Amino acid sequence: MQRLRRLVQRRSTRQAERCFVAEGTKILAAALDAGAPVEGIYYDPAALGQPRAAALLERARVAGTRVFALREGVMGRVADTVTPQPVCAVVGFVDIALEQLAGEHRACGQLVVGQPAGRQPAAGEPAAAAICVCVDVRDPGNLGALVRVADAAGAGAVVACAGSADLYSPKTVRASAGSLFHLPVVTGGEPAAVLAQLAAAGYRRLGTVAGRGSDYATEDLSGKIALVFGNEANGLDDVLEPLLDGLLTVPMAGQAESLNVAMTATVLCFEIARRRRVDGGSPLLR
Amino acid sequence: MQRLRRLVQRRSTRQAERCFVAEGTKILAAALDAGAPVEGIYYDPAALGQPRAAALLERARVAGTRVFALREGVMGRVADTVTPQPVCAVVGFVDIALEQLAGEHRACGQLVVGQPAGRQPAAGEPAAAAICVCVDVRDPGNLGALVRVADAAGAGAVVACAGSADLYSPKTVRASAGSLFHLPVVTGGEPAAVLAQLAAAGYRRLGTVAGRGSDYATEDLSGKIALVFGNEANGLDDVLEPLLDGLLTVPMAGQAESLNVAMTATVLCFEIARRRRVDGGSPLLR
Repeated sequence: MQRLRRLVQRRSTRQAERCFVAEGTKILAAALDAGAPVEGIYYDPAALGQPRAAALLERARVAGTRVFALREGVMGRVADTVTPQPVCAVVGFVDIALEQLAGEHRACGQLVVGQPAGRQPAAGEPAAAAICVCVDVRDPGNLGALVRVADAAGAGAVVACAGSADLYSPKTVRASAGSLFHLPVVTGGEPAAVLAQLAAAGYRRLGTVAGRGSDYATEDLSGKIALVFGNEANGLDDVLEPLLDGLLTVPMAGQAESLNVAMTATVLCFEIARRRRVDGGSPLLR
Repeated sequence: MQRLRRLVQRRSTRQAERCFVAEGTKILAAALDAGAPVEGIYYDPAALGQPRAAALLERARVAGTRVFALREGVMGRVADTVTPQPVCAVVGFVDIALEQLAGEHRACGQLVVGQPAGRQPAAGEPAAAAICVCVDVRDPGNLGALVRVADAAGAGAVVACAGSADLYSPKTVRASAGSLFHLPVVTGGEPAAVLAQLAAAGYRRLGTVAGRGSDYATEDLSGKIALVFGNEANGLDDVLEPLLDGLLTVPMAGQAESLNVAMTATVLCFEIARRRRVDGGSPLLR
């Protein structure tokens, strides 16, 4: 249990072992659905009395996943939350290399919508809306919500550059609501190097900024787009601007505080999805 | 301090005294900007060393607001968060009656974008995008985020029906990021009665549902719209459907979990704002 607790608490342990802890029935079901590398599932005895958790454990056993009962109360000492989930699992990292993403793009010019994590995009599948690149997004809840939103809007991938929150922290995993297992994710890489590599792979890199960018509603969002999100408090670092092909802003009413990064991603990813759905991918709706 | 702590912890105390505790420099600045009924401001001695907090206290003093120093460490026992803010305030409730909202609508046919809380809409100001009605939205973080998003998108008001989370709980106030003071809010009222009253005031009531509603992207969202949001787990209660004029869905990709209520509100409120901005309020962009 020492190991479980360390995996929950320490990024360094997660990185050394290249695995993390996913908590809760829904998220574990998403991991199993996606064929993620689930190393073992742990459950509190109370889980057997909960139909969903019990069904999940049975399903995992049938699939050959190792399943371990914890002594009563142990889950509470392991878990990250005040009200611990009845089940958790140790899961291998699901991120892919940026080269895999960008290389595949060069080859087939598209990404797969909602594909299982770790799988490479295959040719002939529908073009993805866009990818989201997080530069210095520090809050794990924001990063997880962004992954969830990107997945729901059919974005092609999420890249969390070095300096951003850990994709595998318990908070990020929880906030992603299973979406971490649904779309390709990339983690690490210096922002400048990532942005250069995306340009080489044919992406237009559009930074999201408060106020001084173009209104997203009238901007061309067709083709291969990388939406770039900066730090919650300070936005995008000026030194990255030469590595961006444009700046987008979501205009806001009245005296509102700026939207948080996940809200901004929601507006932009769903606007791209809407245009491609409603007008078949032409550059602008009007 | 007993009173502060009770106001933080208990909805019943807040309702009996018709006031709540707002924490943090940004949120208090929003309250002062909006002319909200700030009864008194409390600060930790450490606040005097923080430029923003010190400036806020000075500003409040100049404006005649009562300001009290707390003994060191007291704020930590009062606050709702693990890392307490340097300042907090007791603020009178800012909600207005539904009749005020609906009656004013009947009179002038419009709401004010981003107006200070408690102020009634005045004639001649620009028409609002829509109002958001929360039926049984239980999570205070979701409700607060919805208020923030509604404000940012220029929505006309947020109504939190009886059964929803408390608009004035510390979590809601924090998640609203000051927006609670920017747009008219209404709290309480049985959902069926609220929906009937909104119809009488000329609103089209559009429920938000997963899967079975019309694609929001091709739906008419012009005119006076009330977007209706249901429970996080169970959606909108079937018994309310006769009181709705239509059902909207945000189509999602792949295997994604449904969006949370604040994410759905983000997509819909910003789509309405986009249409009114880009094509001057005509029913549909195309």
